[in-house]
Amino acid sequence: MRILVVNVNTSQSMTESIAQAASRYASPGTETVTLQPYFGAEAVDCNFESYLAAVAVMDRVVAYDQPFDAVVMAGFGEHGRDGLQELIEQPVFEICEASAHVAMMIGRAFSVITTLQRSVPAVEDRLRLAGLTDRCASIRATGMATLEVDSDPKAAMKAIVAEAREAVEKDHAEVICLGCAGMAGLEEAITSELHVPVIDGVGAAVRLAEAIVGLGLKTSKRSTYAFPEPKKIIGWPLSASLGLRVEGAGVRSRE
Amino acid sequence: MRILVVNVNTSQSMTESIAQAASRYASPGTETVTLQPYFGAEAVDCNFESYLAAVAVMDRVVAYDQPFDAVVMAGFGEHGRDGLQELIEQPVFEICEASAHVAMMIGRAFSVITTLQRSVPAVEDRLRLAGLTDRCASIRATGMATLEVDSDPKAAMKAIVAEAREAVEKDHAEVICLGCAGMAGLEEAITSELHVPVIDGVGAAVRLAEAIVGLGLKTSKRSTYAFPEPKKIIGWPLSASLGLRVEGAGVRSRE
Amino acid sequence: MRILVVNVNTSQSMTESIAQAASRYASPGTETVTLQPYFGAEAVDCNFESYLAAVAVMDRVVAYDQPFDAVVMAGFGEHGRDGLQELIEQPVFEICEASAHVAMMIGRAFSVITTLQRSVPAVEDRLRLAGLTDRCASIRATGMATLEVDSDPKAAMKAIVAEAREAVEKDHAEVICLGCAGMAGLEEAITSELHVPVIDGVGAAVRLAEAIVGLGLKTSKRSTYAFPEPKKIIGWPLSASLGLRVEGAGVRSRE
Amino acid sequence: MRILVVNVNTSQSMTESIAQAASRYASPGTETVTLQPYFGAEAVDCNFESYLAAVAVMDRVVAYDQPFDAVVMAGFGEHGRDGLQELIEQPVFEICEASAHVAMMIGRAFSVITTLQRSVPAVEDRLRLAGLTDRCASIRATGMATLEVDSDPKAAMKAIVAEAREAVEKDHAEVICLGCAGMAGLEEAITSELHVPVIDGVGAAVRLAEAIVGLGLKTSKRSTYAFPEPKKIIGWPLSASLGLRVEGAGVRSRE
Amino acid sequence: MRILVVNVNTSQSMTESIAQAASRYASPGTETVTLQPYFGAEAVDCNFESYLAAVAVMDRVVAYDQPFDAVVMAGFGEHGRDGLQELIEQPVFEICEASAHVAMMIGRAFSVITTLQRSVPAVEDRLRLAGLTDRCASIRATGMATLEVDSDPKAAMKAIVAEAREAVEKDHAEVICLGCAGMAGLEEAITSELHVPVIDGVGAAVRLAEAIVGLGLKTSKRSTYAFPEPKKIIGWPLSASLGLRVEGAGVRSRE
Amino acid sequence: MRILVVNVNTSQSMTESIAQAASRYASPGTETVTLQPYFGAEAVDCNFESYLAAVAVMDRVVAYDQPFDAVVMAGFGEHGRDGLQELIEQPVFEICEASAHVAMMIGRAFSVITTLQRSVPAVEDRLRLAGLTDRCASIRATGMATLEVDSDPKAAMKAIVAEAREAVEKDHAEVICLGCAGMAGLEEAITSELHVPVIDGVGAAVRLAEAIVGLGLKTSKRSTYAFPEPKKIIGWPLSASLGLRVEGAGVRSRE
Repeated sequence: MRILVVNVNTSQSMTESIAQAASRYASPGTETVTLQPYFGAEAVDCNFESYLAAVAVMDRVVAYDQPFDAVVMAGFGEHGRDGLQELIEQPVFEICEASAHVAMMIGRAFSVITTLQRSVPAVEDRLRLAGLTDRCASIRATGMATLEVDSDPKAAMKAIVAEAREAVEKDHAEVICLGCAGMAGLEEAITSELHVPVIDGVGAAVRLAEAIVGLGLKTSKRSTYAFPEPKKIIGWPLSASLGLRVEGAGVRSRE
Repeated sequence: MRILVVNVNTSQSMTESIAQAASRYASPGTETVTLQPYFGAEAVDCNFESYLAAVAVMDRVVAYDQPFDAVVMAGFGEHGRDGLQELIEQPVFEICEASAHVAMMIGRAFSVITTLQRSVPAVEDRLRLAGLTDRCASIRATGMATLEVDSDPKAAMKAIVAEAREAVEKDHAEVICLGCAGMAGLEEAITSELHVPVIDGVGAAVRLAEAIVGLGLKTSKRSTYAFPEPKKIIGWPLSASLGLRVEGAGVRSRE
Repeated sequence: MRILVVNVNTSQSMTESIAQAASRYASPGTETVTLQPYFGAEAVDCNFESYLAAVAVMDRVVAYDQPFDAVVMAGFGEHGRDGLQELIEQPVFEICEASAHVAMMIGRAFSVITTLQRSVPAVEDRLRLAGLTDRCASIRATGMATLEVDSDPKAAMKAIVAEAREAVEKDHAEVICLGCAGMAGLEEAITSELHVPVIDGVGAAVRLAEAIVGLGLKTSKRSTYAFPEPKKIIGWPLSASLGLRVEGAGVRSRE
Repeated sequence: MRILVVNVNTSQSMTESIAQAASRYASPGTETVTLQPYFGAEAVDCNFESYLAAVAVMDRVVAYDQPFDAVVMAGFGEHGRDGLQELIEQPVFEICEASAHVAMMIGRAFSVITTLQRSVPAVEDRLRLAGLTDRCASIRATGMATLEVDSDPKAAMKAIVAEAREAVEKDHAEVICLGCAGMAGLEEAITSELHVPVIDGVGAAVRLAEAIVGLGLKTSKRSTYAFPEPKKIIGWPLSASLGLRVEGAGVRSRE
Repeated sequence: MRILVVNVNTSQSMTESIAQAASRYASPGTETVTLQPYFGAEAVDCNFESYLAAVAVMDRVVAYDQPFDAVVMAGFGEHGRDGLQELIEQPVFEICEASAHVAMMIGRAFSVITTLQRSVPAVEDRLRLAGLTDRCASIRATGMATLEVDSDPKAAMKAIVAEAREAVEKDHAEVICLGCAGMAGLEEAITSELHVPVIDGVGAAVRLAEAIVGLGLKTSKRSTYAFPEPKKIIGWPLSASLGLRVEGAGVRSRE
Repeated sequence: MRILVVNVNTSQSMTESIAQAASRYASPGTETVTLQPYFGAEAVDCNFESYLAAVAVMDRVVAYDQPFDAVVMAGFGEHGRDGLQELIEQPVFEICEASAHVAMMIGRAFSVITTLQRSVPAVEDRLRLAGLTDRCASIRATGMATLEVDSDPKAAMKAIVAEAREAVEKDHAEVICLGCAGMAGLEEAITSELHVPVIDGVGAAVRLAEAIVGLGLKTSKRSTYAFPEPKKIIGWPLSASLGLRVEGAGVRSRE
């Protein structure tokens, strides 16, 4: 089984971290191929950047010319899952939703620890549209932007643990979801300190992708996610129009 | 006061219809400038096209080099309002939300008549995220795509009246919202047949824009819609990178 | 265009403040006529007084013998809007709802700063019935009654700013709604201190009234707000029965 | 124990029907005194009339000069309960809410059969504000106004049974609430036809009033329903100002 | 009228306290018979024990061989009400729901003071399934288990008052519900300290049972609570299979 | 990895069907052990039977003396998941919830096709408590009891397809969940007729169990699902007290 894991950011170092997380959590026998978009923001922290990423991720998946079984969108709470579901029939997993699904199976309530306060509404909207808010105890922000998490993991770790502690003690969260693809790798440290399960979104999405593919299921093409009708579209696919389809925008692991 | 009205579709004929609606509903003294994106789908009917339009609308507004007071996004229920709100401080109005606001002020419950069944969830999501679902009696689809509405207004008219009648009689709607920018101009005909107010989204948005601007209010830059932080973004703005910034992609009215 | 602005209180000084706010926010060309009821409480702070005001406002509008285009009920969150909508076909605007509509167009979440804690449920109920609670971050009370706000504007100002600060910092409000007609005039002071937009309900309602009238829309008479059936009603209209229809209960502005 | 049952309508014949229902359902030892307002509509069918009734009911209770233990407002879904709760400390029961409470104790879901379609939103609002909508399967209207129910009980009976059947078979209601004080007396007939429990609101309210009084409980005066502050109120109490306090506006039963 | 009050715990001392509460609150003429299960936990504090109690309560009621008019399940928020409603046609009252019904009739919002934090979700679920959460201001835990409340009533009293005070002052509760059958008897003390009504669930349930029985109503057997179809069931009734049907597991009062 | 799959019914033939489904859907390398309770109803169709099953399933798992990694409760929408989560630390999967999780990942909305109308509320409650109702388009009943589905699969098939067609065409479901463990095996037939994905709950739960176990996650023991405190419990474990711990109540597959 081959799962495409698409970073929503154009940062190469984040793509590598994501590839590691994907590889660490995938089952033996699952190949994960981690890609990054040809255009867009280095790190996505607001709606403008998120919409651009939505298009760039769709563009990147369309440009991929090998067979695959599922796609993981590695951007916590970003836009675009429903668009990509229209373009392909393989199932698509957004990591915020994947985290919530997993959290709801192992605890009464979960909290998300995200980056900036301005990202809280994005996570809230993502969960709301996916119908996954009922068991969300809180969404808390550390105040560190995505790039800061990437560049200063030690400070990020401290800030995340502090917010997670508040979530557990004040909001009665029983599970913690790491609200940023760049937070992967902190799971054990937090669990050992707070004694609650901690979920990395990339890992959650990869394992759920395996489950759905294993069940022989694909995205329903009945109505909402039916393929788009053929139509005149100026400039699409953008990476081709832009001449940006460079080689090597990705990492292959666990063949 | 100058209001930018941005079509989400790249169809020139739809841009002209929208310009007419904007002009018809604007107050004396309000100038409306109707623009269309440099790239994207001729007509937006699904999430993939809608995300592309979200980016193309932001791109088009950023490329506009004259002063303006507000922006109307003329795509019913499409993505992107929250992204554009970050990029500028002038208030931004999406026509589905604008229609709902107006409808809630003049009736107990409203229904939306949209194009295809696959667009119903998009309208539903838009209203849900905006916190405007409580008074929505139903969202009904005529089964005609955006381009069909544009090319066969007579058939569209008949189909819309039929669905609106069901909405009034079965769903207890007391106001009808026309769920597609291309439906503008059918208001009187429907009202005279069904005896309920009918709302055109472009008109609703233009008049609400005037009201907000008149109150001296702009988008709150406190947190969610703060300007994006400066950051490395590959390919942005896309129309410049693509060399698509042609002249004349717009219609000016009511100076 | 002529808009009736009806105070829900029988205090003459509050009627004058409201007339000033209406006049300040109205467009050139809009005449606002501010009226006060013939009977009822000096200042409305509880449900008993609010029901009495609901009837007194309907009574006052029915007694008005000149043409008008819309009515603004200048009582934040009080009863009666749906009753008045039945009696006339011109659109009716309650200022709590108007504030919420405007706030939702320019920010992610809003808070209301009201007078007494006992008024919080009234505001909550008003927003709930109008379907406008989803984007309400909080409703906070200063603990000062309506008459105190009127008589000691300096202390009111201080208390309102304090609660607004909490709303912004703790509840993540991005817009503040002044929850009492008597608070008009504090907008700029609060905005300059907290850097978020502040909405005065009378202004919001007047401008929304202009927008709706400008769109050519009236209250839907389809079902809920249809005119009452003719019927034997003892004592109605009350002001006539009570012999209270004195001259001069109103202020005309901006002709 | 003495329970005041206050008709919201000024129709004498309805007051008598209500008195009979109150008397039939009261426990031995409970005295019910049925009153009617000094002013207001013969029969309440819309919001305007309902607000007038809210004030008239408060006025009538205030004018009552004997001791009592509880008040039942005999108008299904009408305004005013929260106002009256402020004026007195004895518990107050509105018959729509009382019916819903009882229905929720004996079945999974209930439906209300009311008079006109225009009254459906009033019932909906009443239940929503009271927090009692979750188990409401539907609110159905027979299309007969309150006075018609009163004058043609045979036709009313037929129409009510027809709607109740739909509620049971299509909406999966397991209990039926009679949504109009004038429908009292049809319970057995409907139950014998549809085999589901049928609740008369006056009966429900009287028995719940006995239960609350029996528990030694009164309305909480902590905040929302605290007594109004003393204040200048023009024209109050209205019946005194109007000179309408005639004798005999009531029926005493079951001493 | 005879009401069975069934303790969910197998503690004899709790059964006696419950019997006292039932007896104190019942009307003259009502006989209450307090029973305890033949098997299960001494005191129920978690879901495992609650499910066991659900079955044990059904088993105990089925084993009762005298006529009765209603059943009160004296376990705050425990499982099983809907199961027992299927087995018998007499109405069944769970004390958490009963408390909420009563609280909603006399105040704007209520809080529940329960035992352990782990019991909060159980109360929350009970209220949610019963459709009674809207007016619930908060559910607070004292941190004392059911047996501790029973064995150290003085400490319990202090802890309950402390939490109730927080509920009133911070959560704006206007009525307090005692969230454990073992808390009965503390009502007056708390009311005199906090000046809000306090509800004991056993009392509330007994009086509501009297009201429903007095109205001549029984559980609707239409669909959800219809009698189970005859079927092969291994081991049922469990107390008979276990040989546990000892004498005297109950207290009779107020004949 | 070893997954216990516990039938909630005591029917041996249903245990065998469930074992087949578990075996068909499990990954290579996963061993599924299908167990049935020592007591309880042959087939669970109502709340009484469901509570008994909840206890019997807990009892059966406690009696299992080999190591295992996860438990699947094979009863669609039945009680007990939260109780079992307290008794063990391995993750527990109820098949209705598992189906909903999977459905939400591959379609906009799902419908459940269950057995009897009386089971609809049980499924509704299960989804509501799990926070999984938002994307549920409808729950439809075929009118056939669990045992009938087991004994006449051809008629069941026909009835299920008919209801599923209604769900897709009228309720806009895009995914169908088979709402009874006994319906396993009909997936392909329905998909080929209706062209939407069909989910068998046992399969969904087994694959999700593999995913969670693969992620190294267990049930959070922080608060709600902490182990019960040691306590005096009469009669527990029931199967031991009843002398019912016979050999062979289970089927082992896919070692």
